[in-house]
Amino acid sequence: MVKKAPRRTAERIATVSLDLFNRFGEPNVSTTLISAELNISPGNLYYHFPAKDTLVNHLFDSYEAAILSLMEASSDVQDVEDAWFFLHSLFELIWDYRFLYRDLNDLLSRNRHLETHFKHILERKTAALRALLESMAHAQKLNIDAQTVETLSASMAVVVTYWLSYEYVSDPRHAMEPQSAGLALARGARHVLSLLTPYLTDASQQAHLQQLTAAYQSTPA
Amino acid sequence: MVKKAPRRTAERIATVSLDLFNRFGEPNVSTTLISAELNISPGNLYYHFPAKDTLVNHLFDSYEAAILSLMEASSDVQDVEDAWFFLHSLFELIWDYRFLYRDLNDLLSRNRHLETHFKHILERKTAALRALLESMAHAQKLNIDAQTVETLSASMAVVVTYWLSYEYVSDPRHAMEPQSAGLALARGARHVLSLLTPYLTDASQQAHLQQLTAAYQSTPA
Repeated sequence: MVKKAPRRTAERIATVSLDLFNRFGEPNVSTTLISAELNISPGNLYYHFPAKDTLVNHLFDSYEAAILSLMEASSDVQDVEDAWFFLHSLFELIWDYRFLYRDLNDLLSRNRHLETHFKHILERKTAALRALLESMAHAQKLNIDAQTVETLSASMAVVVTYWLSYEYVSDPRHAMEPQSAGLALARGARHVLSLLTPYLTDASQQAHLQQLTAAYQSTPA
Repeated sequence: MVKKAPRRTAERIATVSLDLFNRFGEPNVSTTLISAELNISPGNLYYHFPAKDTLVNHLFDSYEAAILSLMEASSDVQDVEDAWFFLHSLFELIWDYRFLYRDLNDLLSRNRHLETHFKHILERKTAALRALLESMAHAQKLNIDAQTVETLSASMAVVVTYWLSYEYVSDPRHAMEPQSAGLALARGARHVLSLLTPYLTDASQQAHLQQLTAAYQSTPA
């Protein structure tokens, strides 16, 4: 049991840091603040994570593993209901690690590990959205040509990646707080999904899509 | 003539700062670097701009004036050619002030002036894209319902606002350099414009759109 203590501490540090980064932004959270919040000494924190970047990279690696695993599911999407669920899961994951997106370009310019891996995630995300479109086309739910699949998947990737930033600019003081999550994520999923509407082959699928998204207003409050 | 010197110096400071911010990112450019680049004393810089935020706000105000003026033109857009030209002008303006977008959320959290005004720009941008869609629909170039105008204009605003960030993540070391501008802007305009394709009423307009955008590959190199 004693041997497990360091690992439990490392996990606690990671959980609390993720929460602080998400709420206040990574540049505004020091390791001193993290150790104070955990009621541990800076030396103890340093023992587990010798630099703030080590901590950021640890959180990023968890995010990367989760998102790459989710991306695998995109080629199983057959209809509007699957697409809605897939996009919702994707937005939830981005929300859980929203600090990465809040200061993305700044993080990329400072952190070589993130620079290379984030590029890879973005490529995988665009490829997964392409697979989603192709899978729905294969199931004859979408009528869409290859060139449109190419441009539309990239535009969808931009909306998925930056929707929360758009919400943040619209309301910087509240958009990143947990109580904003539900509506923000649903609005994001709705906007991405709406880009598919004109290509849906079936009027009942269009109606189903409108029904799935009707509960959410189109612009942030 | 002598009386004009301070104004010329202020303009020189603004021009050089904009260039340095764009190339290296605002957080990485100090006022010391700016005065060294201009070969003036820090005291002289301080006389014109007492803090880095004063300089950032000065540049932002120029950007705001230019973009609000451009937004006026959106309701004159009648066809695909006008839309292409409008979006290109918009992307060029964003490119000229790309440092604002590179570290947008960080700037917003530090600068109250930007926080309120950027929100306003984003609202105006979304409204202008809505006006563009409505104007093209009025000219019977688009067949689109009111609810789609609402969601599509917001999604277009996200792609317009964040396209360069998407390019930056794809290639952080080169995307912001001047030689990348031409293709990056054309790819952005192409992706935004492609979102209109399924709503175009006229096959000749669709062909014209494809012709306008055909020269550019769909994803960043």
